[in-house]
Amino acid sequence: MPAAGNGGVAARLGALGLSLPLPPTPLGQYVPASRSGSLLFLSGMLPLENGSLVRRGRIGDQVSVASATSAARVAALNALAVAAAEAGGLDRIRRPVRLGLVMMTTADFGAHATVADGVSALFAQLFDAGHARYVAGVYSLPLQAPLVLDVVFEVEG
Amino acid sequence: MPAAGNGGVAARLGALGLSLPLPPTPLGQYVPASRSGSLLFLSGMLPLENGSLVRRGRIGDQVSVASATSAARVAALNALAVAAAEAGGLDRIRRPVRLGLVMMTTADFGAHATVADGVSALFAQLFDAGHARYVAGVYSLPLQAPLVLDVVFEVEG
Amino acid sequence: MPAAGNGGVAARLGALGLSLPLPPTPLGQYVPASRSGSLLFLSGMLPLENGSLVRRGRIGDQVSVASATSAARVAALNALAVAAAEAGGLDRIRRPVRLGLVMMTTADFGAHATVADGVSALFAQLFDAGHARYVAGVYSLPLQAPLVLDVVFEVEG
Repeated sequence: MPAAGNGGVAARLGALGLSLPLPPTPLGQYVPASRSGSLLFLSGMLPLENGSLVRRGRIGDQVSVASATSAARVAALNALAVAAAEAGGLDRIRRPVRLGLVMMTTADFGAHATVADGVSALFAQLFDAGHARYVAGVYSLPLQAPLVLDVVFEVEG
Repeated sequence: MPAAGNGGVAARLGALGLSLPLPPTPLGQYVPASRSGSLLFLSGMLPLENGSLVRRGRIGDQVSVASATSAARVAALNALAVAAAEAGGLDRIRRPVRLGLVMMTTADFGAHATVADGVSALFAQLFDAGHARYVAGVYSLPLQAPLVLDVVFEVEG
Repeated sequence: MPAAGNGGVAARLGALGLSLPLPPTPLGQYVPASRSGSLLFLSGMLPLENGSLVRRGRIGDQVSVASATSAARVAALNALAVAAAEAGGLDRIRRPVRLGLVMMTTADFGAHATVADGVSALFAQLFDAGHARYVAGVYSLPLQAPLVLDVVFEVEG
């Protein structure tokens, strides 16, 4: 049963010309997502496409804000793919509860919100409810990825 | 209905000579807080006062431990203001469940606990129940903020 | 009542030749863990043994991947000790929901998954259900610790 008022996340995604990738394979001995009650905690989602990073390096230096924003949307599609697989379909995802976007940046980088808005805007187009957001700039990430998403969704029971 | 034994968070705040600011406006396309069941996940809270950062820069260099501690309390008041607005009043916040305090620091900074105790002590004065805590020192934060709070509250149903 | 299918976390831990330490004392005005419903949010767990860090310094430089992996398992035993104390015994921990492993690294470090697999493999030996995982490399940590664990468990009601 789709969430009331959601009007079809899958239909909205299609209307944006987007489609879900295959859910990415974990890089170690963990699972893509773990559910407790109606909360679905996702593993860190990297900007992987067909198993390879679409960008590599530090935002503010090797990776521009525009490239990082595009990479963040790739990671967001991976997050939606994982959540859909766990919940039993895109339309069984009620909404993102919390979006964490952690970026590997230069020391004086300050445009975290611009990068994160690439994902927040996509979520706002797909879901009627807003999400809480947390951003930070770290020193290193797995595989020299420019960013990782740390998302909690609420899903149908 | 106030949480049993809480005896009035609003009254305790007033007795400390503190008052709530207006909840800060999000810096992007997200919402200040997102609720699922009785858990209220807050967006990252910066040390903003009337829309401006009270401090800017790296803790251990441009920002002293004392200034950072004071800034952390400003961010904590913002967190309480957001939670009160979402829960329907300060007295409907049952307790902080988890306090994350992420600081922009120098490489060899180690006094994270001192800064975080500024917030933990305030929470201990306002709520009867303790909270879990997580701290880390990152490389960059939005707007060159010295710190960001990442808080989960439990609120009345 | 042990979780169905778990077959005894305590027995499995013993079969691995491991035993629980005393739960570590918080470094400030917070509590080791905070429960809401069946979710148990742990405070940041450091690689402390008898109150002292087993390793200190930056991974990729002063601390090798092998040493960091071993330190991560020390922190994981602390996490299990805290969760067991809060839940009323190891066998009342249903499973780890989410494992966050945050490491203090060099700028070009990329082997976060190797270090984290030390903990994930241990959790996989103890619990039948998988966990979500998040890793990142930060710039500083309390006491110059090489890593901190940020874990959410699901526990018996």
